Amino acid sequence: MNEIKIFTPATIANVSCGFDVLGLALDTVGDEMIIKKVTQKGIRITKIIGQKLPLETHNNVAGVAALALLDEIDCEFGFEIEITKKIKPGSGIGSSAASSAGAVWAINKLLEQPFSNLDLVRFAMEGERLASGVAHADNVAPALFGGFTLVRSYKPLDIIRIHTPKELYATIIHPQIEVKTSDARNILKTTVTLKDAIKQWGNVGGLISGLYTEDYDLIGRSLEDHIVEPIRSILIPAFNLVKQQSLTAGALGCGISGSGPSIFALSKGKETALKVAEAMKLVYNKVGIDYDIHISKVNKEGIKILK
Amino acid sequence: MNEIKIFTPATIANVSCGFDVLGLALDTVGDEMIIKKVTQKGIRITKIIGQKLPLETHNNVAGVAALALLDEIDCEFGFEIEITKKIKPGSGIGSSAASSAGAVWAINKLLEQPFSNLDLVRFAMEGERLASGVAHADNVAPALFGGFTLVRSYKPLDIIRIHTPKELYATIIHPQIEVKTSDARNILKTTVTLKDAIKQWGNVGGLISGLYTEDYDLIGRSLEDHIVEPIRSILIPAFNLVKQQSLTAGALGCGISGSGPSIFALSKGKETALKVAEAMKLVYNKVGIDYDIHISKVNKEGIKILK
Repeated sequence: MNEIKIFTPATIANVSCGFDVLGLALDTVGDEMIIKKVTQKGIRITKIIGQKLPLETHNNVAGVAALALLDEIDCEFGFEIEITKKIKPGSGIGSSAASSAGAVWAINKLLEQPFSNLDLVRFAMEGERLASGVAHADNVAPALFGGFTLVRSYKPLDIIRIHTPKELYATIIHPQIEVKTSDARNILKTTVTLKDAIKQWGNVGGLISGLYTEDYDLIGRSLEDHIVEPIRSILIPAFNLVKQQSLTAGALGCGISGSGPSIFALSKGKETALKVAEAMKLVYNKVGIDYDIHISKVNKEGIKILK
Repeated sequence: MNEIKIFTPATIANVSCGFDVLGLALDTVGDEMIIKKVTQKGIRITKIIGQKLPLETHNNVAGVAALALLDEIDCEFGFEIEITKKIKPGSGIGSSAASSAGAVWAINKLLEQPFSNLDLVRFAMEGERLASGVAHADNVAPALFGGFTLVRSYKPLDIIRIHTPKELYATIIHPQIEVKTSDARNILKTTVTLKDAIKQWGNVGGLISGLYTEDYDLIGRSLEDHIVEPIRSILIPAFNLVKQQSLTAGALGCGISGSGPSIFALSKGKETALKVAEAMKLVYNKVGIDYDIHISKVNKEGIKILK
């Protein structure tokens, strides 16, 4: 195999109470990438369709992630990468993670898989470091492992794949406004009350338990964030109204995707996810803000081969 | 049925990262109680064997919990309670919780179970309020539900029974020193860094996941507490040495039971739990502090009928 075409998914990180640790992969939203094994050594980004992004390997997240991989193996070949971006950068659903994870996953396949998924997370995190200044793993992990993933620890890196209930659907609305990652980060407080922290880890425990037992009601009760959401949500117009209307429409829970501005809701079943989408759209139609909207089953496989 | 004799277990609360939310029930350590249905209304504590504790209903945790139950039902009878205390008060393994939970569980049985387990937790918490000033649920919940329990939320009260792996054993050493609950509480900081809080809920996620998948290695990696243990452990002589020796002997993890002074370790299999006990004993033998030691399978049933 000298060429591979893949689907690499959008992802939701910071799943409510699971700030910085819990993420999930989407099924119907993602980029396409074609990776070719070539005789010329090194990594070249040959084409990016759909978005204006840097072609220089060192300035491209996929390029940097791929270089991190090559750095750990004696490789006789090089690789050419073509990316069709369907995820908008800055939307909060893991645009850079999809490219970074996709590149290393595909190269690993073409090399007959010398690396584990955990290694691939490590390489893809270098792309994240280029994109945001922080080598976080909570988007690249679900892209690579599929389903829900938990970043239990960074030192050492420890990623846990969490059981994903069959009927779990996500609805994501992306209001066409810019939230700077630096603003979303700087607005956070560096300390929290022990009381709020305990509430949060109680909910993390409940959410993980609900995922394993497929207890949708428990998942819903646990999708709370007492720490980050109250602060970051002020950067997203009409957040509280979108959340309230989503819950009224039947969503199990609703929160900020990544560092925003996208808002996600989780629902049991596609029908409810569609109703939630209508409720979300109605809010931004009234407020007069343009949006993209996505409905997706939670993707248990992660990155997939298209041909 | 007019009389019931029960075993009501000791419990470990504050299971490492699960401070204030995660508890588990023990199998070989606990009190015995005899509860009789009598014609005279109200609750009477007729006898307490093994410890000097108040016999006046309003000053006894079992009495107060039982009164909270009677307060919510029209009852033609009264109940007499006899307690054989085998759990030492102040040991940190849920002595008061065993009495409170045992009383309401037995009365509910004699009344043909008008109340749910969640109701019983609520009544037993009144005993905890008398014992410590705080109506906490993290000891009474595992006593009543069995196995591992998560107190997801207090408002509303939400208790989740977590899957308990078959081969999980606890070793508990109780150094014969006094740690005042008020000291253990006052020494805690009211705020924590967001960074430490994230580590903690990452570990809670890992621990719950490890319990459901019976992944003992993951359970071990997740049994960390970056927030409370570093502070409270200074109240317990030789804590760090006991912990280190327990891990060297093969324990999955080790931490403070409740608010101390007991130290617990979890192990896979009885053989390892016994080795951990030897390692713990050796430390306190050298230091010259008396101790009690217990080895117990995690008790999946909770309170049990003896006859």
